[in-house]
Amino acid sequence: MSSGRLRKEVDEALFAFVDRQRPVLHAISDDLDPLVSALAAFLTGGKRLRPAFCYWGWRGAGGADLPEIVPAAASLELLQAGALVHDDVMDASDTRRGRPAAHRRFESLHESAGWPGAAAVFGTSAAILLGDLCLSWSGQMYEESGLPRAALRRGRPVYDGMRTEVMSGQYLDILEQTRGHGTVESALRVVVFKSAKYTIERPLHLGAALAGARPHVFSSYSAYGLPLGIAFQLRDDVLGVFGDPAVTGKPAGDDLREGKRTVLIALALRAATAAQAEVVRATLGDRELGHAGIEALRSVIVDTGALAACEDMIESYTNEATDALRAAPIQPEAREALASLAVAATARLG
Amino acid sequence: MSSGRLRKEVDEALFAFVDRQRPVLHAISDDLDPLVSALAAFLTGGKRLRPAFCYWGWRGAGGADLPEIVPAAASLELLQAGALVHDDVMDASDTRRGRPAAHRRFESLHESAGWPGAAAVFGTSAAILLGDLCLSWSGQMYEESGLPRAALRRGRPVYDGMRTEVMSGQYLDILEQTRGHGTVESALRVVVFKSAKYTIERPLHLGAALAGARPHVFSSYSAYGLPLGIAFQLRDDVLGVFGDPAVTGKPAGDDLREGKRTVLIALALRAATAAQAEVVRATLGDRELGHAGIEALRSVIVDTGALAACEDMIESYTNEATDALRAAPIQPEAREALASLAVAATARLG
Repeated sequence: MSSGRLRKEVDEALFAFVDRQRPVLHAISDDLDPLVSALAAFLTGGKRLRPAFCYWGWRGAGGADLPEIVPAAASLELLQAGALVHDDVMDASDTRRGRPAAHRRFESLHESAGWPGAAAVFGTSAAILLGDLCLSWSGQMYEESGLPRAALRRGRPVYDGMRTEVMSGQYLDILEQTRGHGTVESALRVVVFKSAKYTIERPLHLGAALAGARPHVFSSYSAYGLPLGIAFQLRDDVLGVFGDPAVTGKPAGDDLREGKRTVLIALALRAATAAQAEVVRATLGDRELGHAGIEALRSVIVDTGALAACEDMIESYTNEATDALRAAPIQPEAREALASLAVAATARLG
Repeated sequence: MSSGRLRKEVDEALFAFVDRQRPVLHAISDDLDPLVSALAAFLTGGKRLRPAFCYWGWRGAGGADLPEIVPAAASLELLQAGALVHDDVMDASDTRRGRPAAHRRFESLHESAGWPGAAAVFGTSAAILLGDLCLSWSGQMYEESGLPRAALRRGRPVYDGMRTEVMSGQYLDILEQTRGHGTVESALRVVVFKSAKYTIERPLHLGAALAGARPHVFSSYSAYGLPLGIAFQLRDDVLGVFGDPAVTGKPAGDDLREGKRTVLIALALRAATAAQAEVVRATLGDRELGHAGIEALRSVIVDTGALAACEDMIESYTNEATDALRAAPIQPEAREALASLAVAATARLG
């Protein structure tokens, strides 16, 4: 199936699931309607990368083009929604995909209703609960996909492992941010668990497990997925600093204001002069950072050679992934689709 | 099995599961060790009510005394741990079960390590992630319990429904707190979803579903579990205001400082004179509330007749539950155990 068609079917499955939860919550209380609306708004947009890798992981391992694989794969998007809603609370981010973050949305609901309590506290609490619902519903959507029970049973340990890994990776990330002395190596470790495994390798493995693939398919998917996942996150880091807000959906320099300790920043610090390191120290994580500060930081990242080094890493990891893909013992249609996904996930335009 | 024995087996199953996750996380990074330690500390203590109701729900419906029912029932304690860890973040509570709340524990870790970032932000973020891990691990522990697959399949919709209900109930609760105009009826609605269904009715139903019970067992469990769950929460509300800190594990008057809009408070406000209502308005939710303020609020709750009315409700709901239990078509040993649990859950000593 084409990538556009797959994306459309994933969207349909997701919104059909959310629509089935609407009356369930409404029956408890119509006060819960904003939870479902917030989720539906949050799910609009997004690249649906994880469902795509899961679907092609299944097809590559010989899984038939069954309608039931789509909701099983789409359920990963609910897991991702939960992770992002909580991530935005943790980072105190204002926006997500060009729209208000979930906690800001609930904060606005509070303000427009004129309730007496603290709007920010309500926003944060409601977003924590919405994230919890998403995490819970992702497992439910997977189980209700209609795939054969034996397939779901094979996939469950992969799903569980993926959840443990992404939450572990997130913890390592906040640790990295708060310690603030990140090396290139420690930043890369976060990338492996928070992004490479979670975004690409494990969704492929989930598809493979659902299809009952043999071990060498799993190892081929790792050989393709891990380097591609690293390249994908490095691209995301570059876009977070240099990307066009119209494309990224985030204000320019937002990652710099949030003080994210990425591989890109670690590369810059490793090569920085004392004066350049001082620019990073003085500006990175400044919530009020303006245009001039952003430009100064960008210059350090360019002048230290960090941007070029990061682009080299992206190219090298992407090549490693595509080489592994060529050798992978999988179905030709899936190989082709995964090659396209490698390009899409690491393209300069985001 | 005796209640002491069951509690011990639930504890063993829980810590065995947590111990199995320790090397999984350690293999990712030894920086993750504090997550598992925090969970192990958090799980120490607690009444294990939900596992007990699940176990007796199973036995009452004719389920055999298999070892595998224990970890399936104990998994509810991980769901509860996740809910409590997030609840403490939302309420900014300092303590839980007489020890520091999870976010405070991570905050202390940050402070003693002397990391440069903000300790409170780290504490909150780490606790959100720990709660997410608990939610995810609860489902995993359930699936890995070793119960027959057909049983687990029957239980899954109950488990999913319970998760949706408790998160919905929590949302209604924060809404109730922030709106601040709670009626007795709206406060009771929160109690039904956040406590009565989640703590008692659904764990019983889960046990019944696992055992393949017929519909009238489910309805009997509802007839017993819902009123008992309401009585249990009302008792908790009374203890939160009048309880002995040595028993409750929370500082005296903590619920008053947090400004919890309970049924007890709603009863007081419904009967309050203008002067009494003013005392509530001026003191409830004051984080710095001292001994005199707590005593003033307690006096209003007593003098308005709210405490007596609440005790009447507890007695009446408990009687309704025990009447229903007598008529329930379940195994005698389970009936006896559930009768004892009804006493334990609503006793004045907490």
